[in-house]
Amino acid sequence: MRRIAPLFLFLTACPPAAVQRIGGLPEVPPVPGSPARDFACQLADQVGPRLAGSPGDAKAVAWAVEKMKELGLSNVRAEPVKVLRWERGEAAAEITAPFHRKLLVAALGSSESTPAGGLEAEVVRVSSLDELRALPDERVKGRIVFFDKVMERTISGEGYGKTVDVRSRGALEAEKKGAVASLIRSVGTSEARFPHTGNMRKAGIPAAALAIPDAEVLRRAVQSNQGPVRLRFSTTSRFAGEAESANVIGEVPGTAKPDELVVLGAHLDSWDLGDGALDDAAGVGVVLELASRAVERPLPRTVRVVLWANEENGLKGAAAYAAQHVAEAPKTVAALEVDSGAGRALAVQYNGGPQAEAAMQPLAAPLAKLSLGLAADSEAGGADSGELDGVPLLHISQDNSRYFDVHHTADDTCDKIVEEELAHVVGVGWLLTQHLAQPGVDLGRRPLPKKP
Amino acid sequence: MRRIAPLFLFLTACPPAAVQRIGGLPEVPPVPGSPARDFACQLADQVGPRLAGSPGDAKAVAWAVEKMKELGLSNVRAEPVKVLRWERGEAAAEITAPFHRKLLVAALGSSESTPAGGLEAEVVRVSSLDELRALPDERVKGRIVFFDKVMERTISGEGYGKTVDVRSRGALEAEKKGAVASLIRSVGTSEARFPHTGNMRKAGIPAAALAIPDAEVLRRAVQSNQGPVRLRFSTTSRFAGEAESANVIGEVPGTAKPDELVVLGAHLDSWDLGDGALDDAAGVGVVLELASRAVERPLPRTVRVVLWANEENGLKGAAAYAAQHVAEAPKTVAALEVDSGAGRALAVQYNGGPQAEAAMQPLAAPLAKLSLGLAADSEAGGADSGELDGVPLLHISQDNSRYFDVHHTADDTCDKIVEEELAHVVGVGWLLTQHLAQPGVDLGRRPLPKKP
Repeated sequence: MRRIAPLFLFLTACPPAAVQRIGGLPEVPPVPGSPARDFACQLADQVGPRLAGSPGDAKAVAWAVEKMKELGLSNVRAEPVKVLRWERGEAAAEITAPFHRKLLVAALGSSESTPAGGLEAEVVRVSSLDELRALPDERVKGRIVFFDKVMERTISGEGYGKTVDVRSRGALEAEKKGAVASLIRSVGTSEARFPHTGNMRKAGIPAAALAIPDAEVLRRAVQSNQGPVRLRFSTTSRFAGEAESANVIGEVPGTAKPDELVVLGAHLDSWDLGDGALDDAAGVGVVLELASRAVERPLPRTVRVVLWANEENGLKGAAAYAAQHVAEAPKTVAALEVDSGAGRALAVQYNGGPQAEAAMQPLAAPLAKLSLGLAADSEAGGADSGELDGVPLLHISQDNSRYFDVHHTADDTCDKIVEEELAHVVGVGWLLTQHLAQPGVDLGRRPLPKKP
Repeated sequence: MRRIAPLFLFLTACPPAAVQRIGGLPEVPPVPGSPARDFACQLADQVGPRLAGSPGDAKAVAWAVEKMKELGLSNVRAEPVKVLRWERGEAAAEITAPFHRKLLVAALGSSESTPAGGLEAEVVRVSSLDELRALPDERVKGRIVFFDKVMERTISGEGYGKTVDVRSRGALEAEKKGAVASLIRSVGTSEARFPHTGNMRKAGIPAAALAIPDAEVLRRAVQSNQGPVRLRFSTTSRFAGEAESANVIGEVPGTAKPDELVVLGAHLDSWDLGDGALDDAAGVGVVLELASRAVERPLPRTVRVVLWANEENGLKGAAAYAAQHVAEAPKTVAALEVDSGAGRALAVQYNGGPQAEAAMQPLAAPLAKLSLGLAADSEAGGADSGELDGVPLLHISQDNSRYFDVHHTADDTCDKIVEEELAHVVGVGWLLTQHLAQPGVDLGRRPLPKKP
């Protein structure tokens, strides 16, 4: 999950409830007996970690193909995707002065190894990229930069977007000033002792995330006035060449307009530290349940489930799908990507052409009845569906207040998914799916983003 | 921390507020600028894990001696204690059927190793010792018993006492029925993925605790009806002979009755997975601050700080102190042991002879003003002070609602200590200390427990 929609804008801007109801559109409370969590937990428990190109990833592809067939989807297939395989290896860190203290760390995705045996250097602590940039180079050269930037907990999860720059670009910026390594305070909200991994732009120096309690030990060491703080750091992480992965695809053919597609997507890969339960087995569970409902109650247009490969560290699955299916893009009515954890639904955003607002308006009343907003948002969508040229994108904002406690950590396990909350997302997703699958519902084309 | 006092009995039974105030007894709100947390964090951060007999334990002894001297205590010394050193080694577990899944485990203290290379067997799940006892032996023989007993979260922490029997005696009971190993769901309240260690009675089969999310994976595997669940388990934990540790002791000599002692105690050792911040650096911080206050405002009787060795897995420090200081027991007015985490104070319990109630009564009003109960409790006290024959024991009940989220896990780190909450315990402890250090305050002798 990467994109955080500015949720509250929509909640306050939601349209009045007195809007015409369209025929056959049910009110959708949370779904009792929803199997979405079971699907997610099977993937999380029985496949577990599934970083792109790893053995777990291959297991996930096999699981998904099998599951789609079991649920009665048609045209089930794994479409091959070449990915760059990154291997975590082992990472360790230790304060060596003014006292000795091991620190829990996890290498950041795309980090290269330290020299064999690790490196040791003095620490320079900054709280942001700007603070680093303002330092004279000689304060940084030969040192380990410690980015001590604190993520704020909010229901929208917007704290993530405001903090993640130190993970994405910290190593690159530190390298420019001559640093030998970059360590960040984990970009997360839990005080529990789990380093949060995640991807970064490739840099010439290695980088890792400290568990938050360990980042706080390091902060106290820096602030204790006991003299310079030195740290030993090693990681054997590395790129291990190309590997094979796959997008897994299945369909429920439309009864009236089988060539018109509604795409329901989530990503099948996960980070390697935990089970990827919230990120994104939960999304996989939701779209599989939606497809299974469509199998039971066929819809006029075709519903296509796409489980993308390699969302976490390369987006090669999304790029491959977009390229291989470019001819279908004009016939793809919309894509709903579910990749925001397992919290309850709060609002729906969409985009498309000028006609999108009118096309979505029939959903305003049933959503408002569920206390959910509905609003146009040119940035709605997710990392994978964003690759689809011109296809209108839908996004269900979910309660993210606890998502970043476990996101990208070893603690991302199935027990964190609350059945009723995920079922609520299914309920809203089913409302959207049924509507989008009606012939004639036309959101137009999403304007392509301006190239920078 | 081992003993959980039945707190709410006392809160409702606290005496009316209209009680005579004794001279010079201040009202004690939380202490602003209390250094207790800083002391605790120094021990947690800069010494870290300190299992009895380990290098960290020796570092802790040196730290405590130094700290007591720095704070101006007198007669500071480390009194040698022989301990049995237990080493964790490496532990691993994996479901091997009906699917493959690694499980996070930590060996239980006193567990011996598995055979080299580990063992593999079918799992039999029970939710209590009684459920195990009711099983026919052939259902257990040759299998791994999985104790899936859930601890309840309460402010008193009483759920711990109700659940910990599977940790203490599970392996012994499983062994009686021919099991090859015992695995428990961690005795804790957090859903975060940390195995909770702790001591067990020595048994002939190895034992470990599963992180709660992993115990839930195992439960789902058992309940999934996919066939028998098999598990591979290995641990290299073992006893590594006798080692040297020490009780660290320091005093603030009384101005009027230097031979009459008030003992303030906590334990210096910790489990090895985390930093032992709440268990029990917090208690160490509290009693060091109390002693430091006594240095600044000397009291009529002597205040003795005792930092016991080896509370967690042997109680050899408490036994050694009790034996070496048996002659001082009649002159020990009372002992206050602080080993209940870092939550705010809720009530005070005490015991002693028939005169104890009258002796403690002057504290009722100032405590009631702070909304704290005061009550006699024959079981007040803690694991270490309980060894002191006849000495009246005091206990400050603390808010334990979050304590068992981190207790005995890797997550027991200094960031979990809230300064104001620990300062509140200091405030109450100072009220008790001043009172007990007045000449003539006499709680009598605590009756010895009946031998079973």
